[in-house]
Amino acid sequence: MSSVITLLTDFGDEDGYVASMKGVVLSIDPSATLVDITHQIRPQDIMEAAFVIDSTYSYFPKNTIHMVVVDPGVGSSRNALLACVLDHYFLAPDNGALSYVLSRWLEVERPEGRVSLHRVEVPEDSSVVVYRLANETYFLSKVSQTFHGRDIFAPVAAHLSKGALPDELGERISYIHLFSLPKPREEDGCLVGEVIYIDRFGNLITNVSLENVSGKITIVTIAGRVIAGLSASYIEGQAILAIVGSSGRLEIAAKNGNAASVLQLDIGATVEVKVSH
Amino acid sequence: MSSVITLLTDFGDEDGYVASMKGVVLSIDPSATLVDITHQIRPQDIMEAAFVIDSTYSYFPKNTIHMVVVDPGVGSSRNALLACVLDHYFLAPDNGALSYVLSRWLEVERPEGRVSLHRVEVPEDSSVVVYRLANETYFLSKVSQTFHGRDIFAPVAAHLSKGALPDELGERISYIHLFSLPKPREEDGCLVGEVIYIDRFGNLITNVSLENVSGKITIVTIAGRVIAGLSASYIEGQAILAIVGSSGRLEIAAKNGNAASVLQLDIGATVEVKVSH
Amino acid sequence: MSSVITLLTDFGDEDGYVASMKGVVLSIDPSATLVDITHQIRPQDIMEAAFVIDSTYSYFPKNTIHMVVVDPGVGSSRNALLACVLDHYFLAPDNGALSYVLSRWLEVERPEGRVSLHRVEVPEDSSVVVYRLANETYFLSKVSQTFHGRDIFAPVAAHLSKGALPDELGERISYIHLFSLPKPREEDGCLVGEVIYIDRFGNLITNVSLENVSGKITIVTIAGRVIAGLSASYIEGQAILAIVGSSGRLEIAAKNGNAASVLQLDIGATVEVKVSH
Repeated sequence: MSSVITLLTDFGDEDGYVASMKGVVLSIDPSATLVDITHQIRPQDIMEAAFVIDSTYSYFPKNTIHMVVVDPGVGSSRNALLACVLDHYFLAPDNGALSYVLSRWLEVERPEGRVSLHRVEVPEDSSVVVYRLANETYFLSKVSQTFHGRDIFAPVAAHLSKGALPDELGERISYIHLFSLPKPREEDGCLVGEVIYIDRFGNLITNVSLENVSGKITIVTIAGRVIAGLSASYIEGQAILAIVGSSGRLEIAAKNGNAASVLQLDIGATVEVKVSH
Repeated sequence: MSSVITLLTDFGDEDGYVASMKGVVLSIDPSATLVDITHQIRPQDIMEAAFVIDSTYSYFPKNTIHMVVVDPGVGSSRNALLACVLDHYFLAPDNGALSYVLSRWLEVERPEGRVSLHRVEVPEDSSVVVYRLANETYFLSKVSQTFHGRDIFAPVAAHLSKGALPDELGERISYIHLFSLPKPREEDGCLVGEVIYIDRFGNLITNVSLENVSGKITIVTIAGRVIAGLSASYIEGQAILAIVGSSGRLEIAAKNGNAASVLQLDIGATVEVKVSH
Repeated sequence: MSSVITLLTDFGDEDGYVASMKGVVLSIDPSATLVDITHQIRPQDIMEAAFVIDSTYSYFPKNTIHMVVVDPGVGSSRNALLACVLDHYFLAPDNGALSYVLSRWLEVERPEGRVSLHRVEVPEDSSVVVYRLANETYFLSKVSQTFHGRDIFAPVAAHLSKGALPDELGERISYIHLFSLPKPREEDGCLVGEVIYIDRFGNLITNVSLENVSGKITIVTIAGRVIAGLSASYIEGQAILAIVGSSGRLEIAAKNGNAASVLQLDIGATVEVKVSH
């Protein structure tokens, strides 16, 4: 009855950090199935981690346990959390790493201006249940100041996989910290969104989700380029093309190339979308 | 009765793409054993993928299922294939990714000049059997335009692992697209080959297979360097040495160094081999 | 009754070398659990491998089999070893890759000056038992000159996992080659150590182990910077801070940054530690 346990960190793959976490898991639950999401999150880039876990987790089986350990504040007073939603378990520091995943259930008020971290209430009747990991009997016997991934999250994941109940692992709490995420706004009959992620191929992934567009996208404008309509594949259409990517989001891609390089764009770049109804 | 399932892609390891494929597999067949071949194929470099899968697959157990997803044409009309040979299963787009693997059984006519993709007949009585993946009941319920690795190849691999028969997954077809591969030619009593792959260590791997050399290699010439005889290890012989590599191919290596850097050579570089009979 | 088998190499992740080793293991022992430690050891950097396996192995379950294959001398006359200690098994070439792991049990005399490789006696009554892999029936049937990871270490690991006894795999020998490791020395009431590893985050990890410091660290000096006391987390203290890292070693880190870059330091840099008793 062991679970799939995923790992998403900014630890890279050159040190032994990730392997230490796996060793701890397998010492407690030898039959856990370990899967790496990625360990190439840019050091301390919580938003990037938040995006990647969100675009990935739902493809895993129910009862999968996801460790999201991008944790610049390790050793400080931030909580270590277990969040349960839709039969998926997420173990993460309380630093916004679950912002995209939980944004479907928890509302973050967004003040003007830049993305920022907010304390968000988790109602009693929410689909989301949050625990503060507090029961040290499920931690490694010696917890370091600098590596809670190995000393707290990994052993807790393994015990959860073996059947420990959330209530045994910690105490339920009624809040979590989440980032206010950039949402597309309507302006002059256009939807104005932004690039929120750039993948390995240089595809520019935007915060315009097709499920939120009521109508047909006719024109996409980015960095002064005007793209007519959507392509059906990365090799059809203009040199710079717009396409619905694998996570249902509008993407800008370059035919046989790297759109981020060609357009010299980074995260935060504005995209304008014209929709015909 | 689950299988080993390998993954070879150009997805890199920074996004969640590979993990999504694994999540899909484990959702269908929780006891599949997943092994990464590599995800660092240069974006869209089908030939590189073709070489790596060929030098690796035969070390896996019989009935292993190999997913080779380097797929610049995803979403276009190219077929998605299952090719069966020697008790190994290969899932790949029909774009030449299996050229090296199948070159032992299927002959590609090579016109003058550059490597190119050809439609090759697969005879009824061949050791190779090819299917076009056509049964959508084995795909994810929603197939995206841009990620058939996750939406088609991964679920099909998992069903195959669980026991689905090739005939259930698609329809048998009598052709496949393969690259014409560069073969060494005889010239003035020499074998003239070329570099077809460069590994992490900068070793220059050639298309001269020792099994095709009838005699003893006495002189190897590359980039004006004349190398007498073969070394028995990477630390014996001259600064630039020739050796039979782990895939049985002639390699040029630098003692304690990187031959590709030292010699400033890339794929396609010519190598001349003198053989005494 | 299969084991966890770990892999630590300098093979990188772009070629199929690591996957070939895994294929060989799974062909012999399909139920082995494979875990990558890292494959990003700098090509042929045995000391780096020696550090990483030492900081990782103890988090794995008892009876784990660790393959440490950084092997510039592959194909030469160096021995292939199995070393057993504390219910962990290590398979490695006899080139110093186990220097850190075994330094707790075996003493290496250190001459003046640079790190160097020494032949070290392994007493009969030592906690460490060393075998030379000599029984070719446990190797692949065809052993290449250049890839003993695949042809010797991987099949031996799999047979060990399946229950073969060390005595069946080779013959016990009474020596091993280890590096003399840099140890902190006392000087003018200070402990003078050095940087022995730099991790992905640019943290400078030193050879000053807190278990060897009898007292309280008050001042740490590195590259002219004077750091007062130890921080409790990577985000507390000065811009450049000292902290006890996850392996119990003194580390120098940069708050929200990369200490190696900021301080322009590399392995071998001197660190001075003042201790109050």
